[in-house]
Amino acid sequence: MAQAEIGLIGLGVMGSNLALNIAEKGNKIAVFNRTVEATRKFYAEAGSLQSQIVPCETIEDFVAAIRPPRPIIIMIKAGDPVDQQMELLKPYLENNDIMIDAGNANFRDTMRRFDNLKDSGLTFIGMGVSGGEEGARHGPSIMVGGKEASWKRVEKVLTSIAAKYDGVPCVDWLGENGAGHFVKTIHNGIEYADMQMIAEIYGILRDGLKMSATEIGEVFGTWNKGRLNSYLIEISEIVLKAADPITGKPIVDLILDKAGQKGTGKWSVIEAQNMGVPATGIEAAVAARSISSMKDERVAAEKVLGLPAVADFKVADKAAFLADLESALLASKIGAYAQGFAVLSAASKEFGWNLPMPVIAKIWRAGCIIRSQFLDEITTAFTKDPHVANLIVTPAFATMVKDSDGALRRVVSAAVLGGLPVPALASALGYFDSYRRGRGTANVIQAQRDFFGAHGFDRTDGADAHHGPWGSGLKA
Amino acid sequence: MAQAEIGLIGLGVMGSNLALNIAEKGNKIAVFNRTVEATRKFYAEAGSLQSQIVPCETIEDFVAAIRPPRPIIIMIKAGDPVDQQMELLKPYLENNDIMIDAGNANFRDTMRRFDNLKDSGLTFIGMGVSGGEEGARHGPSIMVGGKEASWKRVEKVLTSIAAKYDGVPCVDWLGENGAGHFVKTIHNGIEYADMQMIAEIYGILRDGLKMSATEIGEVFGTWNKGRLNSYLIEISEIVLKAADPITGKPIVDLILDKAGQKGTGKWSVIEAQNMGVPATGIEAAVAARSISSMKDERVAAEKVLGLPAVADFKVADKAAFLADLESALLASKIGAYAQGFAVLSAASKEFGWNLPMPVIAKIWRAGCIIRSQFLDEITTAFTKDPHVANLIVTPAFATMVKDSDGALRRVVSAAVLGGLPVPALASALGYFDSYRRGRGTANVIQAQRDFFGAHGFDRTDGADAHHGPWGSGLKA
Repeated sequence: MAQAEIGLIGLGVMGSNLALNIAEKGNKIAVFNRTVEATRKFYAEAGSLQSQIVPCETIEDFVAAIRPPRPIIIMIKAGDPVDQQMELLKPYLENNDIMIDAGNANFRDTMRRFDNLKDSGLTFIGMGVSGGEEGARHGPSIMVGGKEASWKRVEKVLTSIAAKYDGVPCVDWLGENGAGHFVKTIHNGIEYADMQMIAEIYGILRDGLKMSATEIGEVFGTWNKGRLNSYLIEISEIVLKAADPITGKPIVDLILDKAGQKGTGKWSVIEAQNMGVPATGIEAAVAARSISSMKDERVAAEKVLGLPAVADFKVADKAAFLADLESALLASKIGAYAQGFAVLSAASKEFGWNLPMPVIAKIWRAGCIIRSQFLDEITTAFTKDPHVANLIVTPAFATMVKDSDGALRRVVSAAVLGGLPVPALASALGYFDSYRRGRGTANVIQAQRDFFGAHGFDRTDGADAHHGPWGSGLKA
Repeated sequence: MAQAEIGLIGLGVMGSNLALNIAEKGNKIAVFNRTVEATRKFYAEAGSLQSQIVPCETIEDFVAAIRPPRPIIIMIKAGDPVDQQMELLKPYLENNDIMIDAGNANFRDTMRRFDNLKDSGLTFIGMGVSGGEEGARHGPSIMVGGKEASWKRVEKVLTSIAAKYDGVPCVDWLGENGAGHFVKTIHNGIEYADMQMIAEIYGILRDGLKMSATEIGEVFGTWNKGRLNSYLIEISEIVLKAADPITGKPIVDLILDKAGQKGTGKWSVIEAQNMGVPATGIEAAVAARSISSMKDERVAAEKVLGLPAVADFKVADKAAFLADLESALLASKIGAYAQGFAVLSAASKEFGWNLPMPVIAKIWRAGCIIRSQFLDEITTAFTKDPHVANLIVTPAFATMVKDSDGALRRVVSAAVLGGLPVPALASALGYFDSYRRGRGTANVIQAQRDFFGAHGFDRTDGADAHHGPWGSGLKA
């Protein structure tokens, strides 16, 4: 029997789906799971794909079934279990074998694992996989970090299973060691921001315009045919229109407003902070999820403070306001994505990855959660100008910002006056208005810092005088 | 000769001022500096305070000059130099001697240093000192972390040198190991937010109302007599009115709008993120400083995008708008401080410190950069209810929020429509409007997460059904 092209450990939902996807695309795959029952069940249910699958019940058999150098995907719970699995596997491997962590690892763990294998003859790939269960099964977006030679070994298999956008596979090698998992982390950070912006627009429609879930679903459905065309807008329509089988009511009206988070949003913020890159859209989204999780505190606070005492939310021209909401969502997306790519750009320098911005945008166009027509426009912009300082100064996006920021202003203003929270939408506007202003207001901050801490400042006229005329008498 | 009550290493500006303060308050102090010249110069210039100062030129003499158990303040550059200084000092110390790091340490370094000394017989205090050079000389706010017994040994000296608010010294023991430096970090984080909010109001006055620096200084001067009475508002008036000695123009108009940062703002955000506590005011402020530092990018972006195309900033009733600005600044301060105290509260649990909220507010009332009448009101609120979930649901602050959030809405709306960046002011409004709303919009986020990732959700009706009615057919 021919050896398997690749191996996979961990037959949970994601691992099983990835393995079926690999088999279905004509690649022979060896699979192994800690519990033998899961392996047997997986194989039994694989149907016509069984011929491409080598189910293994021992690590020895598993390793022997794979063609060297062996690429072995590890798809298990992120964190310590990955280290433990790697330690269990190592004694059975040979020079140039490649362990591939396909979970949602923190890229700093990936860097450490990569380093730890440096002198072992073995090597490592940190691989970000986006698209959820369905993506894993039918075509995810795949972000690969590791040695280029390792990528060459797995390129054919991964290309065969990746999502396609206009026939172009959504997978590529992005750089050494932690590059793939870092890019996946920022993908998720952007996803947090995008989802929060959608939720804020939903809030304006629900609590401002008093529209029903189904009506709001219709709005998103319409928008999905226009500039906002994307997976997240598409599923917004679906979930808003879905009826609860128990009560017949719209299911979203019965879902508790407590959003969970698993860490990638937080990691995005922390890494952006470490590099001094503004990522206020992601920050607003992470904060909003945290506040959502404080349900009891919020209910108690509403009892004490009441909802804001504001005039009824009135809109003179509903069609015009809906058009504003659509443009506002587009504008705020531009802000969040521009920040996300700016974080990637800084990390590329910080970690020496030489991250290819156009390629990242390209492989996010299909398969992943933030897939969209919008990312095709970003791909085009970065392809024309891969080293631009910021997405929003590329010609296409500068035009989009100028065309849509007026609507974003009107929407944020209406929400703010109407007592409806729009922290992520407002963050995008604050970002644009700060970033496009050559003369800001930090001069007064510098004056204060020099006053109380003698920090010094530079001058606009270049004069060689770096402290203010405040004697110590003034400070006493 | 009687032994010194305390020792101090590091005669830079902060160390010298702290030593002179200690001597002036009647405490005998031994001082040492790496370069003997600095010690001699310091002593020579100490004038009438020489009798309280023991200048030492060797570590042996220095240690011998201090009464055991010896408290030794180390006031040098934060980071590795502190570890190096501690290693140099250790061989000369005896059981129960106390090394005190008074620099702006990251509290995680403080925790590590504290732990490292655990079995050495020696011990450690991490001491946050706020108030800049003037505070160090004439009365800082001092935040002490370490063993309570160590605090007892230094209580008398520190109490004598601390700032006083209505006669109450602004110093206290806040908890074990890193408690003091953590509280100082969050103090600085709040300071970032407070300064950014002032800068945003300044921007509205300068770029919206087209007022001169001197006129704006007048406004801050007036506000300093009211509810905003505080050191930062006081110095805002001073710096805005100060004339440049070279050109005669207002100095703030000549200061470059690039604000520096030293790390405590960033640390505040990262620790808040680690604990899942929203700190969007500090995040907005740190981001604003980062954007300010990208001066070249901003100038280039203004060339590409232009300033926002908005109608002229018009105010019907200037006096009413100024009153709104005053209330808006107060409201946004409440948001930032509420977030800061919420971070402290979470850290208290996370690190087992049992941080006393009323005491923290109390010792920030004078001496430190954020000192204010406002902190006296916070002290009162937390004294009445030390375990309240959030400052804004205490009766006094709930009333303040309800009285001032309307003005904050009008100001944010006007700025947003006028193209003026107000990210920190907007963050406070987003925080209030999210936190006081019992039914938020995260239900739609949970629906999406369940749709693409099968994350599951809870229901408002408690029914035991945790997934939506979306078959895999919908997702394909």
